[in-house]
Amino acid sequence: MTKLFFENDYNCGCAPQILKRLEKENMNSRSGYGTDEITAAAAAKILARTGTPGGDVYFAEGGTQTNAIVISAYLKSYEGVVSAETGHVTCHEAGAIEATGHKVLPVPGEVDKLTAGALREYLKAFYAGSSCDHMVQPGMVYISHPTEYGSLYTLQELQDLRAVCDTYRLVLFVDGARLGYALAAPENEITLQDLGRLADVFYIGGTKLGALFGEAIVFPKGMPAFFPTHAKQHGAMLAKGFVTAEQFDELFTDDLYVKLGGHGIELAHRLKKGLAAKGCRFHLDSPTNQQFIVLPDNEVQSLHEKVAFEDWEKAYAGHTVIRFVVSWSTREEDVDALIALL
Amino acid sequence: MTKLFFENDYNCGCAPQILKRLEKENMNSRSGYGTDEITAAAAAKILARTGTPGGDVYFAEGGTQTNAIVISAYLKSYEGVVSAETGHVTCHEAGAIEATGHKVLPVPGEVDKLTAGALREYLKAFYAGSSCDHMVQPGMVYISHPTEYGSLYTLQELQDLRAVCDTYRLVLFVDGARLGYALAAPENEITLQDLGRLADVFYIGGTKLGALFGEAIVFPKGMPAFFPTHAKQHGAMLAKGFVTAEQFDELFTDDLYVKLGGHGIELAHRLKKGLAAKGCRFHLDSPTNQQFIVLPDNEVQSLHEKVAFEDWEKAYAGHTVIRFVVSWSTREEDVDALIALL
Amino acid sequence: MTKLFFENDYNCGCAPQILKRLEKENMNSRSGYGTDEITAAAAAKILARTGTPGGDVYFAEGGTQTNAIVISAYLKSYEGVVSAETGHVTCHEAGAIEATGHKVLPVPGEVDKLTAGALREYLKAFYAGSSCDHMVQPGMVYISHPTEYGSLYTLQELQDLRAVCDTYRLVLFVDGARLGYALAAPENEITLQDLGRLADVFYIGGTKLGALFGEAIVFPKGMPAFFPTHAKQHGAMLAKGFVTAEQFDELFTDDLYVKLGGHGIELAHRLKKGLAAKGCRFHLDSPTNQQFIVLPDNEVQSLHEKVAFEDWEKAYAGHTVIRFVVSWSTREEDVDALIALL
Amino acid sequence: MTKLFFENDYNCGCAPQILKRLEKENMNSRSGYGTDEITAAAAAKILARTGTPGGDVYFAEGGTQTNAIVISAYLKSYEGVVSAETGHVTCHEAGAIEATGHKVLPVPGEVDKLTAGALREYLKAFYAGSSCDHMVQPGMVYISHPTEYGSLYTLQELQDLRAVCDTYRLVLFVDGARLGYALAAPENEITLQDLGRLADVFYIGGTKLGALFGEAIVFPKGMPAFFPTHAKQHGAMLAKGFVTAEQFDELFTDDLYVKLGGHGIELAHRLKKGLAAKGCRFHLDSPTNQQFIVLPDNEVQSLHEKVAFEDWEKAYAGHTVIRFVVSWSTREEDVDALIALL
Repeated sequence: MTKLFFENDYNCGCAPQILKRLEKENMNSRSGYGTDEITAAAAAKILARTGTPGGDVYFAEGGTQTNAIVISAYLKSYEGVVSAETGHVTCHEAGAIEATGHKVLPVPGEVDKLTAGALREYLKAFYAGSSCDHMVQPGMVYISHPTEYGSLYTLQELQDLRAVCDTYRLVLFVDGARLGYALAAPENEITLQDLGRLADVFYIGGTKLGALFGEAIVFPKGMPAFFPTHAKQHGAMLAKGFVTAEQFDELFTDDLYVKLGGHGIELAHRLKKGLAAKGCRFHLDSPTNQQFIVLPDNEVQSLHEKVAFEDWEKAYAGHTVIRFVVSWSTREEDVDALIALL
Repeated sequence: MTKLFFENDYNCGCAPQILKRLEKENMNSRSGYGTDEITAAAAAKILARTGTPGGDVYFAEGGTQTNAIVISAYLKSYEGVVSAETGHVTCHEAGAIEATGHKVLPVPGEVDKLTAGALREYLKAFYAGSSCDHMVQPGMVYISHPTEYGSLYTLQELQDLRAVCDTYRLVLFVDGARLGYALAAPENEITLQDLGRLADVFYIGGTKLGALFGEAIVFPKGMPAFFPTHAKQHGAMLAKGFVTAEQFDELFTDDLYVKLGGHGIELAHRLKKGLAAKGCRFHLDSPTNQQFIVLPDNEVQSLHEKVAFEDWEKAYAGHTVIRFVVSWSTREEDVDALIALL
Repeated sequence: MTKLFFENDYNCGCAPQILKRLEKENMNSRSGYGTDEITAAAAAKILARTGTPGGDVYFAEGGTQTNAIVISAYLKSYEGVVSAETGHVTCHEAGAIEATGHKVLPVPGEVDKLTAGALREYLKAFYAGSSCDHMVQPGMVYISHPTEYGSLYTLQELQDLRAVCDTYRLVLFVDGARLGYALAAPENEITLQDLGRLADVFYIGGTKLGALFGEAIVFPKGMPAFFPTHAKQHGAMLAKGFVTAEQFDELFTDDLYVKLGGHGIELAHRLKKGLAAKGCRFHLDSPTNQQFIVLPDNEVQSLHEKVAFEDWEKAYAGHTVIRFVVSWSTREEDVDALIALL
Repeated sequence: MTKLFFENDYNCGCAPQILKRLEKENMNSRSGYGTDEITAAAAAKILARTGTPGGDVYFAEGGTQTNAIVISAYLKSYEGVVSAETGHVTCHEAGAIEATGHKVLPVPGEVDKLTAGALREYLKAFYAGSSCDHMVQPGMVYISHPTEYGSLYTLQELQDLRAVCDTYRLVLFVDGARLGYALAAPENEITLQDLGRLADVFYIGGTKLGALFGEAIVFPKGMPAFFPTHAKQHGAMLAKGFVTAEQFDELFTDDLYVKLGGHGIELAHRLKKGLAAKGCRFHLDSPTNQQFIVLPDNEVQSLHEKVAFEDWEKAYAGHTVIRFVVSWSTREEDVDALIALL
């Protein structure tokens, strides 16, 4: 018997519409490295949708790569990126940010969202330090929407972060690896236009939302000079750039991107309701496609035999936080089967 | 009218067999980051074909990325990579090697192949230098097969390079971005098994040979410790690793890889013969899918109106070396049309 | 009136014996880059003193530089250095470690010493993580003796750290920027021979102990291959290497190094006693040349008018931890004047 | 018998005036990291002398370090530094520039000076290339005055380089490791004021001109933001910054810097004349403190027994280019003794 799969949201190929598009385009000859018309068209579509027609889009292949090239493109040698303690760049990138020479500066105590209040305190304390010139200078603020725990920033929270960034002249970067699940969540207040207005740079994740691979980096006010050269230098320029672009062109046709997210959210809520009905203890209240619950270690152990999922962290003595992920490709019957198992 | 396309070998999607395979696998759920069974199967196939069953394979996404992660995985901080003056890593990588902290050491005078004789002279002179400890130490030798100009090493030449590497304890790395075109060329003497026996690490290029993207790095004696972690750190680990592996599994089914190369070689030879018949002056004699000819600048100019191709370098006063590239996807009628234009 | 100076331990030139030595050697012609006889002699003296005659010594210029070149010489690309939360490399190096591409991995909760127990827990949790291959691998343990707060490891604590490093095959690096003050403290249990036996690499700080500048890096089992080349690559090889070596040769003549530390420790204890007599609240009990006390903010403010010292960190509402540093060059009357002011 | 020493210009301690100054200042307590008054005073003196009172000065410790921190402070990630083929940064820095992530771009054929003509051709060809966006972008021009071979740029040549840099918006950086010998040479046309007017950044070398160590980096229009933080990050900030500054304050008192250079130049000319009288063949005509002659290999061999000097490069079959260096500390009788030996 195959295990039920709730391990991640990148376990299948791509949305059927995308596959069809790749087939249709397959033997069309196009110029390389993103200089083709599809790349231009997909970028234009995305910029229209984010309300930033004067901006730029760059298509990269994966999340770690995107975070590394965006962060290193903006930071000066002596600058670091400020993040929540649990920010993806702080913990799960195999040192990709440091490999570009930059320190990640975690804000102590911020274990899910990075709030404007904590950020402001952190920055005030930093600049008040007598030897702050001898330390890594904050140059950028990194958040993800949803967060590592599936939480959503409110519009007010994002505006407040923007205000702090303005005060301290910091670049605001929003990692949208799972942005489609945020956009589709009823609780979500932040639109693509809000991101276009409030972020200096953000990315729209394709890998976790129906593409074979690919992330669309949006620069509402234009990209840094020679960003593509910088990307190529970091191995982030596909020869067949059009393959990524075709996928995003399709994702932004008939709002497919949000529809795919919507499927994930619908099933996530079905799962959440089912878990609640079974009396599961939630680690936190996530409105998106990742659900975190706390289980006794022995139950975790036996559940692993029938379900693929990830142990997230120790909760407390004898208990573990585990993560279930649903996605654009999850089937309703699998959600029901999982609930039945608990 | 669409221009005839001879600009590069990465202008179309992928071989039909690959597309079919992607369709077939599309909704199969697999674990992430290359831990799935297809990745293991494709690796095993490649290792069998290269006669190195005890080796390892890692799938990366593109050539620049592959060169950067392989070179930086082997070199120590104070080491550099030795290359021909025209080596791809010397000139065309946007500084990707240097971005990992390593110098490229071009051997003066080697403008196409890197020969064992010149390499040995270079190394002898280097170690004879009174202050060689204050310079970047040679740590690896980089060649590509075919070379940047489409040339092929003879088996003897490769064995001789191996011998120099043994003497000086250098890692021998063979860039096979266009390896399939070499393997299919009648003039080629070097088999995949020879590479498995003589190189410390080499890669089999998919991007230029029928894949949507992807390069298979082969480590005949096993990969360096934590190579996947190193790759992820450099943004070279796809979440859906199985997408790359499926493509290579297909390329190594029924020898598709060499067959695709064979189509390119057949048309390259048709083109070469046609160019010769038209009295074109060749820059050098290339037995593979890139043909370099010398044309007066004004002819180059007018040809650009009807044909997409690249100006390669200045030849001499008023003349330019241009490059025509054919590939697995080039059509016979386009080759004929190009010949007719000259 | 000149302020009393308790800001740091690098405020004067050098010990008179060192100055005399520089004068004596001044017009002797020597070969460059540390290939001279004085460098060899000073290294031999230090190795004899640390009980590691088969080891190596390398002379660098300053602490940040030393930490960066030592750490980056040992770590592989995918490895990071484990440190206490307050470790000097974690906070005060302007990102020098990250600039070499490596992450600093702070052990949560370790705010002064890094204890073997906490280290072991940290490592156990790390390797138990399901995705630990996607994270920076621990490759080295960094401690300083004395710590950032002037504390001293016991011999047992150091042995326990060594045991953990052995279990997990980690390099143990001891930063001895202020080692002389440790060696001279009555409370100290760890000798230079203990360091020679238990550390893989450590350094004996000269900058803060009577030299114009300079740190002697000791490699009890020999230095990594091409370490001097690596150092030069990072700008850490002085043309006149003999100038650093002459200073260390003098510091290790007649035990000058420990004597200079002894002067600092004597005055530190005088200060400590005086502060206690005045009823000052100590932030922690430091047996070495840095004393940390907690003062109300307004007293801190007014004290700054007469004394040069550093505000270390916020203590609690309205109170600050301040640091007084005495050194080999501090005068007794200044200590008494400071006590009188409180 | 001690060998005659003509190996380099960093073989003795420091000029007596400097030693006296260090003695005088020795027990004065000063603040750290270059925030003291001597550092400010020395910087002001140098800026007055270079005619750039609105500029900045930063004191570093050695040449390789200085080149690395200056170059990496100005270049963006995708930029490289253009240099003559024989530029010090191209060959003799152990990869220090590449370790900061940047490529050195040698201009082919420029084996001593980098001329404006060759630079312009190089840049024109670069930007004419169809794939120049995929290559390292030129961001800075590096020259040294004197060159690696002791040559001097004419004022016109420097102005022409400036003009090319203006056209292509490149930073012009002049390495003055041996600048004092240029300034003292009768053939020299370029003054410190010229450098202040024409260079974007240059350094005045102390290591090779009478200091124990130290280089003064001059930024005529001000230093890049947070340059000291950047320097510290690269291990180039001495805790006792005043030690470097005291030396430069002395070097710029009563024109000591040029006087020390003058002594070297006087003896260099005495040597040159003597060599010519002996019929020695010069490799090129050097007006400064390095003299290069061509000798048969067997004569080179036997000369090494009595004289310390460096074999520079192979000249032609059986002959070697050797280098004699005189300096501020060379004695007239040694020059005469050397001449007598030839």
